[in-house]
Amino acid sequence: MDPTQISHLALDIGGTLIKLVYFSANGDYSEESRNGCSVVKGRLCFAKFETRKIDDCLEFIRFNILHHSGVQQPNGEGHDKLYVKATGGGAFKFADLFKEKLGILFDKEDEMCSLVGGVNFLLKTVPREAFTYLDGQKKFVEIDHNDLYPYLLVNIGSGVSMIKVDGDGKYERISGTSLGGGTFLGLGKLLTKCKSFDELLELSHHGNNRVIDMLVGDIYGGTDYSKIGLSSTAIASSFGKAISDGKELEDYQPEDVARSLLRMISNNIGQIAYLNALRFGLKRIFFGGFFIRGLEYTMDTISVAVHFWSRGEAKAMFLRHEGFLGALGAFTSYNDQSHNDLKPHHHTVQRAILNCSGHNFRHIPVTSNLNESETIECSINLV
Amino acid sequence: MDPTQISHLALDIGGTLIKLVYFSANGDYSEESRNGCSVVKGRLCFAKFETRKIDDCLEFIRFNILHHSGVQQPNGEGHDKLYVKATGGGAFKFADLFKEKLGILFDKEDEMCSLVGGVNFLLKTVPREAFTYLDGQKKFVEIDHNDLYPYLLVNIGSGVSMIKVDGDGKYERISGTSLGGGTFLGLGKLLTKCKSFDELLELSHHGNNRVIDMLVGDIYGGTDYSKIGLSSTAIASSFGKAISDGKELEDYQPEDVARSLLRMISNNIGQIAYLNALRFGLKRIFFGGFFIRGLEYTMDTISVAVHFWSRGEAKAMFLRHEGFLGALGAFTSYNDQSHNDLKPHHHTVQRAILNCSGHNFRHIPVTSNLNESETIECSINLV
Repeated sequence: MDPTQISHLALDIGGTLIKLVYFSANGDYSEESRNGCSVVKGRLCFAKFETRKIDDCLEFIRFNILHHSGVQQPNGEGHDKLYVKATGGGAFKFADLFKEKLGILFDKEDEMCSLVGGVNFLLKTVPREAFTYLDGQKKFVEIDHNDLYPYLLVNIGSGVSMIKVDGDGKYERISGTSLGGGTFLGLGKLLTKCKSFDELLELSHHGNNRVIDMLVGDIYGGTDYSKIGLSSTAIASSFGKAISDGKELEDYQPEDVARSLLRMISNNIGQIAYLNALRFGLKRIFFGGFFIRGLEYTMDTISVAVHFWSRGEAKAMFLRHEGFLGALGAFTSYNDQSHNDLKPHHHTVQRAILNCSGHNFRHIPVTSNLNESETIECSINLV
Repeated sequence: MDPTQISHLALDIGGTLIKLVYFSANGDYSEESRNGCSVVKGRLCFAKFETRKIDDCLEFIRFNILHHSGVQQPNGEGHDKLYVKATGGGAFKFADLFKEKLGILFDKEDEMCSLVGGVNFLLKTVPREAFTYLDGQKKFVEIDHNDLYPYLLVNIGSGVSMIKVDGDGKYERISGTSLGGGTFLGLGKLLTKCKSFDELLELSHHGNNRVIDMLVGDIYGGTDYSKIGLSSTAIASSFGKAISDGKELEDYQPEDVARSLLRMISNNIGQIAYLNALRFGLKRIFFGGFFIRGLEYTMDTISVAVHFWSRGEAKAMFLRHEGFLGALGAFTSYNDQSHNDLKPHHHTVQRAILNCSGHNFRHIPVTSNLNESETIECSINLV
């Protein structure tokens, strides 16, 4: 196998996080032949790094992927040009850095195209991928492949993109908002002493937003504004109580601040998503991106917002691999330039099968940041 | 005249601000008779107080309005029950306080009904009331009374209400958002050392949001994401740069923080307003409420948001008396319980004429917080 393409790695470099998807063959290195191709079994693994700590990512790739692939000269000496699929704004911004440090050239994939490719791959291939979350109940949803389109994809990264998806490779970015994960973490870091997204989320888990949000009941003296359907506990004004309390930032508990922030941003995204779904008559809204992280409170807030504004007409759905949509889309694009061919040739309930041409891999140890259970069993066809 | 109703005062008590509208007769006390009524010329005056400083408001009413009306016993002794029109949540919350301190009983008007009544009164009666603001140009709009409806009213108080108005007294609250003026001031106070709304707005005037917002160009290494029409200077993530700078709150200039906050909230309101206008095919959106305060940057951001998202189809309009919509609506409701009769019997280009039954006023000195030019010339019919 010649090392001109590292087909088992794809990157999605966003404003806040770098997401990696890579293939790791099973330890027994089993290869079987099917239709003239070698088939290697393994897993799709996932890793993420903060974009500001991009050196960690470079080291990870050098030691865990290039090294195991038999690439000895990280500066590009000793091998021909290595191309890796990459998407996100950082595929442009950091192209020179990857070339210089690892000798890797980016084969750039469009960001929206990758997102859509990733979601379509997951929905069609990976069992128990999509679920709803309401009233504390996670419920997996069976997706009928013949009744998948159209849907609204809401990808919550640093900012938020909203994409109407009409089919494989058929999509349009119809809206977005600048109030996204970057706003949550950015404002959160300024308002609390939190250093990381996970720390801030953990904090919000223990907070009470009513300490700092102005509720309808705070304005109406404890009563509802029932004529227009606003209960006394509805939030009238996010952070509105901070106006009049005569308190300084230090007087508030950081967990309450984090909670208000999370609620404000989740609710806002849910509302704008619903309004866009309504424009195009879309009943299903899939929420993805690293903002959600499977956090129950976030999913609950988004679900409630969609349910409230749509009066139960539209449904918020979430994806188990929500954080890696763009990277997965870039990964599957090794397959073919046309996304119509992304459908795996085979799949069963137990495993997803990727059909990737392009090659050069060795056994890579599973070092995913996700739980083992979140890796995706698959096999790769070697042509 | 018996003092059972103070027809020349109305209140709108919100979560953040108390707004007053009151009638002040001209110094010469001229009365003329028309159609069997006495007509008194004067001005509608406006005043505002912070809700948390409600005592200032009580004092203002006691000394400037009750006193001039000849009401000597503020605790209700010496006169029959005094009813004053009041709206907003505080009309419920503070009813007992007004009764106890001033001997005033609230004749409560519905909040949404008052807002709509106020806007319709202004648009139909007061010349040069509505204007657009684009590219730094304020342009007054002639409103054809026969082509006024339907329109979208976006009232930005502590929270935001969005109301579809189909005619006099015909309206529906179709949406809203909790990211409003209370969020701006609440978060602003926590993030800067500002004590008041005006101080925060003044600060934002000198700031640069690009210091702290993550722009498309920051993610894409300075280039546009032109395929989907996002320029490099578009905000990808509000406050997104605060993620990675390794800076603490103290390291940012408060004016930059205030600017980002103002831009985030104005833009979000503009977007949600547009999406709601689109649902119902409304081409005109009137923005009101005390958040705007005639501030050019705020109006510009809202206008640009509406223009951007609607691709020029919808138009943002502003109102000169934006902050007093609810109070004006409550004031005009003295006229009649039915808003169909709110049309003034007479008006000229120079003056607005109110036709209020109910009475009891004396000359009140003009002590409005607005400029003299912002008071509304009018006359009151005494039946």
